[in-house]
Amino acid sequence: MESTPPPFDPATLASRLESIVSKSQISTAAEILATHSTDKWYASHPPDVVVFAESTADVSAVLTFASQNQIPVTTRGAGVGYVGGCVPIQGGIVLSTARMNQILGIYPEDGVAIVQPGVITGDLQAAANQVGWDYPPDPASLKECSIGGNIATNAGGPRCLKYGVTRSYVLGLEVVLPDGQVLRTGGRLHKNKTGFDLIGIFTGSEGMMGVITEATLRLIPKPAARAMLAAVFPEFNLAAAAVQNILNSGHLPSALEITDTFTLAAARRRLGADVFPEGNAHLIVEIDGRHAAVESELEELYQRLLSLGASHIQRAVDEAACEHIWKLRREFSYSLRDTGLTKLNEDIVVPRSKLVELVEFARSLEQKTGIPVACFGHAGDGNIHTNLMVENYDDPKVRAHADEALDLLFTWILENGGAITGEHGVGLAKKPWIRQALGETSLFVHQALKQALDPQRLLNPGKFLDL
Amino acid sequence: MESTPPPFDPATLASRLESIVSKSQISTAAEILATHSTDKWYASHPPDVVVFAESTADVSAVLTFASQNQIPVTTRGAGVGYVGGCVPIQGGIVLSTARMNQILGIYPEDGVAIVQPGVITGDLQAAANQVGWDYPPDPASLKECSIGGNIATNAGGPRCLKYGVTRSYVLGLEVVLPDGQVLRTGGRLHKNKTGFDLIGIFTGSEGMMGVITEATLRLIPKPAARAMLAAVFPEFNLAAAAVQNILNSGHLPSALEITDTFTLAAARRRLGADVFPEGNAHLIVEIDGRHAAVESELEELYQRLLSLGASHIQRAVDEAACEHIWKLRREFSYSLRDTGLTKLNEDIVVPRSKLVELVEFARSLEQKTGIPVACFGHAGDGNIHTNLMVENYDDPKVRAHADEALDLLFTWILENGGAITGEHGVGLAKKPWIRQALGETSLFVHQALKQALDPQRLLNPGKFLDL
Repeated sequence: MESTPPPFDPATLASRLESIVSKSQISTAAEILATHSTDKWYASHPPDVVVFAESTADVSAVLTFASQNQIPVTTRGAGVGYVGGCVPIQGGIVLSTARMNQILGIYPEDGVAIVQPGVITGDLQAAANQVGWDYPPDPASLKECSIGGNIATNAGGPRCLKYGVTRSYVLGLEVVLPDGQVLRTGGRLHKNKTGFDLIGIFTGSEGMMGVITEATLRLIPKPAARAMLAAVFPEFNLAAAAVQNILNSGHLPSALEITDTFTLAAARRRLGADVFPEGNAHLIVEIDGRHAAVESELEELYQRLLSLGASHIQRAVDEAACEHIWKLRREFSYSLRDTGLTKLNEDIVVPRSKLVELVEFARSLEQKTGIPVACFGHAGDGNIHTNLMVENYDDPKVRAHADEALDLLFTWILENGGAITGEHGVGLAKKPWIRQALGETSLFVHQALKQALDPQRLLNPGKFLDL
Repeated sequence: MESTPPPFDPATLASRLESIVSKSQISTAAEILATHSTDKWYASHPPDVVVFAESTADVSAVLTFASQNQIPVTTRGAGVGYVGGCVPIQGGIVLSTARMNQILGIYPEDGVAIVQPGVITGDLQAAANQVGWDYPPDPASLKECSIGGNIATNAGGPRCLKYGVTRSYVLGLEVVLPDGQVLRTGGRLHKNKTGFDLIGIFTGSEGMMGVITEATLRLIPKPAARAMLAAVFPEFNLAAAAVQNILNSGHLPSALEITDTFTLAAARRRLGADVFPEGNAHLIVEIDGRHAAVESELEELYQRLLSLGASHIQRAVDEAACEHIWKLRREFSYSLRDTGLTKLNEDIVVPRSKLVELVEFARSLEQKTGIPVACFGHAGDGNIHTNLMVENYDDPKVRAHADEALDLLFTWILENGGAITGEHGVGLAKKPWIRQALGETSLFVHQALKQALDPQRLLNPGKFLDL
């Protein structure tokens, strides 16, 4: 789909916007345009202007203006996505929600928090924890990502195995529609069957259906205790079998994280050879609950992992020890970056029974393409971050070769009943494979829904529905 | 919105359908039309013909034919809804999925079950339990309701406090669209961010967006143990305070069920005065998990309830004892029917902090209208079944008076941030209040979505979008 030329040059656009929001909320400064051109992925395109919304009224006024003048609007949260989802590929306005960053209230008596979209996920967790409650979704970037972006991508994380993804925690939304209308749906209610699931329409819609300006989020009583086991196995298939065995014996850990040989080797290089005892796979099991419960379950799981062939098991029974293990786990990503290679982090998902086949496929892909492949991630969900480690990614020839490798990976994933994205979204990164992934009927439904809410196709244009 | 007269008389319609499905799948017999005219609510309207689909191909062929000929189609699962949702109020075809009742597979290795829509919810639970897994959603009608209807209404139940409603367990759907196209979305994957949340579009859409022909459902490892406390409190406000206290101290019970004085009195009349010790409120707390965990948490909760003023607490520590308590709990509904009055069961929801205010409002409504009001239900969710007990409901004058009382109830609910339905859906029963409940912007979005997928408005016409 072609983009039509914008009706205003950037300077005119900015001055027109000054009649809508205050001057301090508008920028065409080169460095501001630059930081709002990209996210953590590789695509980049500058907006004509950045508007920093400070209220729902601002968002509504900007969208009303944009829809009356056919100006593309790309909403941006914290800008730490992995797929180019907030890159304003057709220019126009970047509408930042970063200044709408207030926690409006934490209400244990109703089991909810009410927040603006720019609130950093980790800050919400900390605020809920302070009053004995918890917001479970825990994307790895939780210290820098914001709730608005989490909702736009329906973000996941390790604990989603037990607690579910972001969608399970959104009870109410205020959303500004593409034409500027303000929709309020849901509320501080833990069940609600009043009409269709409008929250679901916007959660995961990657900024293409509306702009979230407020969210009412479900909190849960914070589990009193947690504990972890970090086990090393001689081979990956033993660790994968342990995942099946644990779940099949009635345990529902809060996290089950698996790591392959390549990643472990990189981690040993970064962190020291003695950090992980010898072995080709690593498995983290985290449980939570009441103190006595966690204590006895940890012992059960310890014995189970031993009997399943773990060659070394580390116990973490208090908060500090658990955080230490998670800190090591978070280093995996940096360890891969230490290789000096470009890391193409693909958050693919397979049916849980296919973990071993996935890693075997990754090995064969590595042999076929010469591109090392590192796998680690959320084993319980089958959501394994599969990282293609590419040398000289800036070279167009290399990039084309990497795309061919990705094509082989995604084709295998889809043939095996998997998904090309589990938690990062489609954005620009997965756009070339979206037709293959969805199929024609699903695309038809997507386009019909888009047409229903954004017939001018102004919200986040150029993404996966503009094929 | 007016209905246009159907293009065929019933006999012609039936004979035209014979070219599409086999004769044994079509009925115009009076007793079949009668049983397919209504559900557990009070509205009734016969279809012209009933078609019993036996495959996705049947559903697709019927919808293709219906859309080409502008014939209304109302899908029917087990027909045990509480709001008239499957009543074919504009005649036409009732499309029954009752014969599509196969569990296609239970796959612990992937943590999923794949089922046809006509599978009875309790049968799925039993089949999952047999292999050590569980399907948590537990509507009270689970022995007679079907998965297709559960998905159409996004059904809840007591355990949804801990485990979430039906939507949290739908990982994949096959849906036939109003024009006969077959959509497959999602799969046996515990995370999936490929495009918009199409599962959410259909889950809870009350048969107005498509016909579900297959579902891939999330299973969880069956908790090894469960246990319950059934406590009597002198007054309702003490029981409601206990709900807050339990959740605020880090417990997340699988169920928290509260009962008011009126309901208790009716239960004592049905079951004997000695079944419940003296007291004006009853609270059930159910927990589940590993054996040792459940044992120690039960003791903690016992002491907590004592300190919060419970005058009598019964412990249930094994499966049989728990089932006995649930059996008594299920008798509450029958106890209310024993009164000889018509029970208007409204599944309203309030913010959890407003339980006491709700029950106080119910008492004032009773005084104002002369209609007794019985409250009991899912206290942890704020989803309290509020039953208006009406004498001579068949008398139009009485019905009008009852509607006035419902209007007072729903107006209060909405003014207090509540919802007019938590798990039953809107159907015909709540249709008069849907505009007030949703507001104009939400209605606009609903209509736009309906227009996108069912522009001829043939699926389940006459319901809450045909105002």
